[in-house]
Amino acid sequence: MLRDVGSWHFEFNAVVASVRDRILRLAGLSREAGFEAILLQGSGTFGVEAVFATAVPPSGKVLVLANGAYGERMALMLQRARIEHLVLRTATDIPNDPIALDRELAANKSITHVAAVHCETTTGILNPINEIGKVVKKHNRTYVLDAMSSFGAIPIDFAAGGIDYLISSANKCLEGVPGFSLVIARRSALLACEGYARSLSLDLLDQLKGFEKNGQFRYTPPTHAILAFQQALNEFDQEGGVPGRAARYRRNHTLLLEGMKQMGFRTYLPPDLQSYIITAFHYPHDPRFSFHDFYHRLSDRGFIIYPGKLTQANCFRIGTIGRLFEADIRALLAAIRETIDELGISMKNDHLMNR
Amino acid sequence: MLRDVGSWHFEFNAVVASVRDRILRLAGLSREAGFEAILLQGSGTFGVEAVFATAVPPSGKVLVLANGAYGERMALMLQRARIEHLVLRTATDIPNDPIALDRELAANKSITHVAAVHCETTTGILNPINEIGKVVKKHNRTYVLDAMSSFGAIPIDFAAGGIDYLISSANKCLEGVPGFSLVIARRSALLACEGYARSLSLDLLDQLKGFEKNGQFRYTPPTHAILAFQQALNEFDQEGGVPGRAARYRRNHTLLLEGMKQMGFRTYLPPDLQSYIITAFHYPHDPRFSFHDFYHRLSDRGFIIYPGKLTQANCFRIGTIGRLFEADIRALLAAIRETIDELGISMKNDHLMNR
Repeated sequence: MLRDVGSWHFEFNAVVASVRDRILRLAGLSREAGFEAILLQGSGTFGVEAVFATAVPPSGKVLVLANGAYGERMALMLQRARIEHLVLRTATDIPNDPIALDRELAANKSITHVAAVHCETTTGILNPINEIGKVVKKHNRTYVLDAMSSFGAIPIDFAAGGIDYLISSANKCLEGVPGFSLVIARRSALLACEGYARSLSLDLLDQLKGFEKNGQFRYTPPTHAILAFQQALNEFDQEGGVPGRAARYRRNHTLLLEGMKQMGFRTYLPPDLQSYIITAFHYPHDPRFSFHDFYHRLSDRGFIIYPGKLTQANCFRIGTIGRLFEADIRALLAAIRETIDELGISMKNDHLMNR
Repeated sequence: MLRDVGSWHFEFNAVVASVRDRILRLAGLSREAGFEAILLQGSGTFGVEAVFATAVPPSGKVLVLANGAYGERMALMLQRARIEHLVLRTATDIPNDPIALDRELAANKSITHVAAVHCETTTGILNPINEIGKVVKKHNRTYVLDAMSSFGAIPIDFAAGGIDYLISSANKCLEGVPGFSLVIARRSALLACEGYARSLSLDLLDQLKGFEKNGQFRYTPPTHAILAFQQALNEFDQEGGVPGRAARYRRNHTLLLEGMKQMGFRTYLPPDLQSYIITAFHYPHDPRFSFHDFYHRLSDRGFIIYPGKLTQANCFRIGTIGRLFEADIRALLAAIRETIDELGISMKNDHLMNR
């Protein structure tokens, strides 16, 4: 990452080409099978918006399946882009509902695209992407999947789900550094979008044409982040690809949950809905608990956790992805235990509820 | 740049706040004087598009002053965003014309914004940004300036030019690494744009509100690029700010031009229009000259130059910004001399034309 390479130089273009190929391969796809991996400058949100800005025709309408902040964000970006849309909501602890989707798509022929979030990190809930995909394909609509925090660590079957566009980011389960998003697109779907783009920077079809014309990004890429990503992919391969990474994250998560439960903490979601990506925990019952103090004392010990993102429940969240190993989780658990003791938080009532 | 910091952690937020303040200071501005520096993920082009996407009202119309690829790119992004616009062109070796602008603004009351490119790197030409600004302000329109490749190394007087929005990038004269653009906005102008935004990712007003709400980027920032930028600003200050950096770049440029002229190379632009940022040189007359060979042999020697960007003249370009010193320019000149000799290019006719 410390090398300063020419952003349009042939040596860097070769890195970009290789990274794009490797993203497809790790997804079990290939260009020959009709898919393209497109890198786009900016965060993951830029990638999601780019799919809508590029792929939805002027007369298009997007149905968003939402059970958290990232589904709602999709609705917000559609609103800003003046793209017709509707939102099919479930509660934050209820997965997206394929039956309701089926009903809606049967009734509403003007819907052209269905968008879902694989792992909704608001809670850590996993949505049933294959069941959703089957319904979308039955009705012959385009399927957009935000797999930001799952891609690379939770197996995703493009064929089973009929996924047309998948968006993820360099800095989640692939363990790169932030700076760009990645979009996997069904080539035939994307090529059919000529003239739809509402933005130049976010035009994925134009971005693809740029790569195909001369191997270059159209506009200055985050070269250092892309070099770092190449190394991240090496480490990903060394770990055994998706199964290897999934195994480590699952171990991290299991260890975290056992340790937290032992202390009395309760998860927001039941185990069958809970991903091994991120977990929301209820605040302890003790009114002396202050998230602010808890957060800062953990941060002083070198651990950064997430605040809650729910309005209807007081939770904090702990991520279990990234370059983390069992020793890190054990150290985190020890730090949480110390912090709870230090703050004089009683976990007695939590233990009772945990039975 | 090798530290992995929490992208919403208070320690990182403090870096972001400090960077935003320092950008204003180096521009001779402050928040108290009514300006804001906003960082936006993505390349410089994302920043330019973000200004249009955020600041132009639904009924707005942008006049673009163009004499090269970056002016034309503005027109293209306005077209994609379905924003009404017109382009006032001059030839690539003629600066933007304030008199023609005055005439157009007097005649065309529907124009709300005027956009110009300070240093058009297609050729390296400098446009008369203060004269343009005076005309824009006389007609009471909003002034958008793409100062991508000049900000930090060519003095820009916001008051004299009446600039409302200036866009630059981390990785040009401020010598950071690529990953984000920076927009300096007149606060009153930006706050008046509520409800205009055509994009969520590119919504600069929302981005500003995010910084003001909790010090955070709304969406994952390129943390490593921002840490690198903090160091880049330290080095900028150590060099003596804009005057110090301008002096080094000017020395680099003078040295390059002298050396190139000695070899017989001719610049595309006359000296009075030529910036010290980037310079376009005509190909040698000798038909044996191949840009491809020239480029690759220079690259083998560690020097990456730019191809031309003009349709009407065969040029290559050499940038003189970045962490370059006189020794680098001397080494480049030696490499060019060697390459010309190696390729057996005769510069005889060029020397004759150079008299």
